[in-house]
Amino acid sequence: MKEIYVDNSATTRIDDEVIKAMLPYYTEYYGNPGSLHEQGVKAAEAVDKARNTIADLLNAKPDEIIFTGSGTEANNLALLGYARKNRDKGDHIITTRIEHPSVLACCRRLEDEGFKVTYLNVDNSGLIDIEQLQATISKDTILVSIIYANNEIGTIQDIPAISNICKERKVPLHIDACQAAAYLSLDTEALGVSMMTLNASKIYGPKGIGALYKKKGITLEPIIVGGNQERGLRGGTENTPAIVGFATALELARKSSDIEADRLSALRDGLIQDLTQNPDIHLNGHPARRLPNNINIVCKSIEAESLILLLSEDGIYANTRSACSTQKKASSHVLRSIGLGDKDAQSSIRISLGKYNSAEEVKRIGEKIKEIVLMLKYV
Amino acid sequence: MKEIYVDNSATTRIDDEVIKAMLPYYTEYYGNPGSLHEQGVKAAEAVDKARNTIADLLNAKPDEIIFTGSGTEANNLALLGYARKNRDKGDHIITTRIEHPSVLACCRRLEDEGFKVTYLNVDNSGLIDIEQLQATISKDTILVSIIYANNEIGTIQDIPAISNICKERKVPLHIDACQAAAYLSLDTEALGVSMMTLNASKIYGPKGIGALYKKKGITLEPIIVGGNQERGLRGGTENTPAIVGFATALELARKSSDIEADRLSALRDGLIQDLTQNPDIHLNGHPARRLPNNINIVCKSIEAESLILLLSEDGIYANTRSACSTQKKASSHVLRSIGLGDKDAQSSIRISLGKYNSAEEVKRIGEKIKEIVLMLKYV
Repeated sequence: MKEIYVDNSATTRIDDEVIKAMLPYYTEYYGNPGSLHEQGVKAAEAVDKARNTIADLLNAKPDEIIFTGSGTEANNLALLGYARKNRDKGDHIITTRIEHPSVLACCRRLEDEGFKVTYLNVDNSGLIDIEQLQATISKDTILVSIIYANNEIGTIQDIPAISNICKERKVPLHIDACQAAAYLSLDTEALGVSMMTLNASKIYGPKGIGALYKKKGITLEPIIVGGNQERGLRGGTENTPAIVGFATALELARKSSDIEADRLSALRDGLIQDLTQNPDIHLNGHPARRLPNNINIVCKSIEAESLILLLSEDGIYANTRSACSTQKKASSHVLRSIGLGDKDAQSSIRISLGKYNSAEEVKRIGEKIKEIVLMLKYV
Repeated sequence: MKEIYVDNSATTRIDDEVIKAMLPYYTEYYGNPGSLHEQGVKAAEAVDKARNTIADLLNAKPDEIIFTGSGTEANNLALLGYARKNRDKGDHIITTRIEHPSVLACCRRLEDEGFKVTYLNVDNSGLIDIEQLQATISKDTILVSIIYANNEIGTIQDIPAISNICKERKVPLHIDACQAAAYLSLDTEALGVSMMTLNASKIYGPKGIGALYKKKGITLEPIIVGGNQERGLRGGTENTPAIVGFATALELARKSSDIEADRLSALRDGLIQDLTQNPDIHLNGHPARRLPNNINIVCKSIEAESLILLLSEDGIYANTRSACSTQKKASSHVLRSIGLGDKDAQSSIRISLGKYNSAEEVKRIGEKIKEIVLMLKYV
């Protein structure tokens, strides 16, 4: 049985070219980039080269890139690091109700530390209320943090419009671009963002490496202290193989982003059309402003976990929602925020396509879901 | 020219068996351990198995192991995490003057947050003053953190004696065992420690993965928040390949630790004897209570950086001190703490042997150092 992996928003299979680029930094150029000798120099050069590559792809400067151990850590550095460092400027932070658990956890932590957080509402397609943002920014607001494309329902926010408001009010904007990175613009200048989170494992790169773009002038308090690595903003020996793999993965992803976005959008729309012919199946999220690879559907009266497990038995690997939340009992905060009741939220599944998925596979997914939904309906 | 890598305290070449164990988790079982489907289950099982392996090797329980992104992060979690969580119990922390930069940076951070830190003195061999520890522990002391074996001079502290004092006074003891892990006992029960830091990249494992052993009952505030990974103590998708690699590396290291300790001690002592025949070369640190792989020497009136660079030109990769500090201008805090003046501290180099070094290589290192020292003396 051939496996069909459609949980690419949780994590992706590493690209063979990426692992090939990494291997020499495990076995040949394994030195510590902080060491003075030739082995150290070679490792430091590889880290510099990767940093330059990533900076170029983001229309940024190399010293605006901070490598971290994950997207979660980059979000922590952006939110906790910025708020703690800039506490004297104000105590108010704005985010949305549909952020990744790492951003929401940071906000709760900051509330414990005395900050005030506004969680913007979203409409039933998952778009934030721009007027609410306008109305909420005050002289105490020090940071706005918005997820670029949502990890559960794939809704893409209008970042340039949001950043214009933030610029007018002189408040830095952080965006979590982990899910967006393979398909949407990452031009930090055009987007007008002050900070941006990336994660290699969502773009066919290695696990255990993320990055925070931090515009010049933005000050942060490090959350991991130690040596002088990452200009004192993140202690710990640089993970050379993973950093090299990250740069390779981002390069590959950006090279094919337009073509892949078109190809996957077509597959996505075909699958949505196929599935929603069944009157018990409805699309969650925005019909158009959505990630090319994201399909999130509610299958009325069906328990999502059963559906996922039955699909898994057939070698089809989808997910209920975000893998970072699956161990929690409560239903998805994202789905509830777009107006779903608990019952529908617990009947929703996410199919996140990726570059290794074919049209044939997508067809089989459609058939299988309809088959299982029919079966479960009469259990 | 064959390279001779003797900077194993900075980082080690990955073992081929380790990379072999990791590869399937990059390319075949790449799922997110938090996902419900078969790919997720396989990844979660691999993480569980690795956690069990590591726990067994430390005479600990699986739920006492927290995976982190580095040894530095594990030290941060131990110090910042414990102090912040247990602030109500007291505000005093005890450590030493010869800790790794990550522990010292945490202590400075905690001082900024209102904690008081005592930095224990060490004698000229690098051993802490046990009586000073006894005298310094007060009712306000909430944590003692001691480096098990020093990363620059290799001095091994008497951890069981230290932990007895801590137990009597009911203060938890954290040890940084990153350098000790390949050679010394890691039996957390016998050592009597409450927390212990490990790092895969020092034991022929991958970079970007560390662990904190945390005895049951010890409470921590996470420093990276997000999903529920690591029982809520460290957010971020588990780095399955690196975790599997870490367990494999620790298993291999523990299997050969006695034999390697004996083999390297003999090479170390031979090299020390060889080098110190030159009246301008002296050993730094303790002659006996020292890591089997550590040689740290002062070469009187020689600039250490020049020596390192000349050795590097000959394919011999040693270091001035810790790679985490090489970018700082000031001379080593460790060497100054054992009584060296700035001049001698800046004339000191570290040769850290490893499992890929042969007797022949060590002989060549001795010859080459003596040759360069002689040459530089008459420049």
